[in-house]
Amino acid sequence: MIIKCMKQNLYNGVQTVYKAVPSKTTMSILECILITANSNGITLTANDMEIGIETKIEGSVVEEGIIALDAKLLFEIVRNLPDNEIIIETENNLSTSITCEKSNFTIIGKSGEDFSYLPAIDKKDPVVISYFTLKEMIRQTIFSISDNDNNIIMTGEYMVINGNECKIVSLDGHRISIRKVALKNSYDEKKVIIPGKTLNKISTILPSDMDKDLNIYFTDKHVLFEFEKTIVISRLIEGEYFNVDQMMSSDYETKVNINKKELLDCINRATLLVKEGDKKPIIISINEDNMQLKINSVQGSMNEEIVIEKEGKELIIGFNPKFLIDALRVIDDEKISLYMVNPKAPCFIKNDDESYVYLILPVNFNTVS
Amino acid sequence: MIIKCMKQNLYNGVQTVYKAVPSKTTMSILECILITANSNGITLTANDMEIGIETKIEGSVVEEGIIALDAKLLFEIVRNLPDNEIIIETENNLSTSITCEKSNFTIIGKSGEDFSYLPAIDKKDPVVISYFTLKEMIRQTIFSISDNDNNIIMTGEYMVINGNECKIVSLDGHRISIRKVALKNSYDEKKVIIPGKTLNKISTILPSDMDKDLNIYFTDKHVLFEFEKTIVISRLIEGEYFNVDQMMSSDYETKVNINKKELLDCINRATLLVKEGDKKPIIISINEDNMQLKINSVQGSMNEEIVIEKEGKELIIGFNPKFLIDALRVIDDEKISLYMVNPKAPCFIKNDDESYVYLILPVNFNTVS
Repeated sequence: MIIKCMKQNLYNGVQTVYKAVPSKTTMSILECILITANSNGITLTANDMEIGIETKIEGSVVEEGIIALDAKLLFEIVRNLPDNEIIIETENNLSTSITCEKSNFTIIGKSGEDFSYLPAIDKKDPVVISYFTLKEMIRQTIFSISDNDNNIIMTGEYMVINGNECKIVSLDGHRISIRKVALKNSYDEKKVIIPGKTLNKISTILPSDMDKDLNIYFTDKHVLFEFEKTIVISRLIEGEYFNVDQMMSSDYETKVNINKKELLDCINRATLLVKEGDKKPIIISINEDNMQLKINSVQGSMNEEIVIEKEGKELIIGFNPKFLIDALRVIDDEKISLYMVNPKAPCFIKNDDESYVYLILPVNFNTVS
Repeated sequence: MIIKCMKQNLYNGVQTVYKAVPSKTTMSILECILITANSNGITLTANDMEIGIETKIEGSVVEEGIIALDAKLLFEIVRNLPDNEIIIETENNLSTSITCEKSNFTIIGKSGEDFSYLPAIDKKDPVVISYFTLKEMIRQTIFSISDNDNNIIMTGEYMVINGNECKIVSLDGHRISIRKVALKNSYDEKKVIIPGKTLNKISTILPSDMDKDLNIYFTDKHVLFEFEKTIVISRLIEGEYFNVDQMMSSDYETKVNINKKELLDCINRATLLVKEGDKKPIIISINEDNMQLKINSVQGSMNEEIVIEKEGKELIIGFNPKFLIDALRVIDDEKISLYMVNPKAPCFIKNDDESYVYLILPVNFNTVS
């Protein structure tokens, strides 16, 4: 194999597929990036058996061939070469030379035959969504998946496409996050559970362009994201997702309108007194026109008052401060509304058109403490 | 004790002295910052028994007193409070309230009586040097101190002041780094060994102003740095420093003039093939008008050519690439000169007025490998 390409093109490509290289594995071939040079041009592939990324790069194929090169080494070498044309040339014994200007590296590759190819996906009926929208929906929900493999369903996000609506749901047993957006086109109903890991990677690879769209293809077992010259293929999580609609409710006894930043800053301050792993609740007293927040820990105590608008009953309720922080951090509205029923029922943070809904379960607390 | 001060003043002060709070200690009082409020105003102090920092902050003393507060907690609380006046008030039982706007923290302090005070230093005959110059001299030499406590002298830097010259030397058995600057005033000879840890901390605390000077005071056992409203006191390392002058030489058989960036980039690339802890030398062949650099490791090989100007003999010599990188990184000149005698004698990188001298010992290598 002999290929020629500009450093920046190769570097961008390597950087993209590098995201699918597992950091720890016992199969050393998975630590490689596969370079394929044929009549279709130059393709880079990485595959950790759960998620695979493939990207095409500009350049010329002087001699067709395939080679698997250690991903980290390739990444570092390309990154450090001058900004000029790079020539990669393999010998029959897998020895591979990487040359740029007067600099020449020789490293030993692995046979491309040993590489695990990506599953072939029949690309039809893509769902079209903008880079920005998908990234935002992931950011605004990914924090409430579970990192506990005991319930594999909770480690993924539920994506429901119906008509021109796309909904993403995540939950971990203490809270539920839901985001909805309108799509430009209309589609038949699709319901899939996508691994959280896949969505995190997609998020880091996708540029933030607001005016560019990607295609998402679904099969029974896989999802394929296609954008620019790159495809990302991931397994889906099999099984039935939770019936989230059943957990929703629009009844409330207390509604609070509050400045989001003031509330978030205050809860952030309160958590300074809580050491990691220590489960101290923040106790919120909702009064006529203010909210009082209190926390007590071995390190000390904090209390603070925030001005609010209240509808309905006064209430004292306790929360895990982290759950409030996670949700508040991803809401962009300046003013938000909290809906509560009683100290044991879930609290909802949502806007009027329910394009976002965050359900958070309260925690028990001892009012005397 | 009752004090009032603006958040930013308190925050800056806490941030400064926080550098002297040890990250690990069995004496919990050392994890505190001491606040002293008296007729001299408000002073913050931290002390890890080797290095102590004291700074004065603007604010008003409503009631005199002293209190020691957990440094991390104080730092985090102050950082997260709104940008407004902060009131700190202690009760007789050491309970301390920190209030800002509608936010109130209560934490338990420790008695100021238990705090280890800084040694009293007789401030006379200061050496005056600009912030920028001191920071630069530290940056340009600190990398070649030894981190091995077996030879305590090598863990410090040797500072020699004589007339209007200030010289800083560090060495670790494989290399020597020397920087010289001219001072504005003239002084009697002073020779001290300052702990590397102290110099690193001074570097992070000192602003980078080119036009501001600090005062340095020396006693037999201590050095005191004074700038703005802050003093840093450190123990000196006791003992006799190495006779560095004896190791210097201006004889050479081969002199090379080379572009610094090209050489540094090339050595950086070469080290990509060397895993940490693996001691592969970079082998440099100095020819008539070019230099060839080669490295071989289990991961592969690299070779590269750089254009040079040469005086004297051709030469093949091997180096630990890290030692070259460390020195090249801190030299600001575009063109540099290397002076060598033979493959077993030290290489010098220095400029004509010897305001910097880097001595690096070569390593043995097997030309066949």
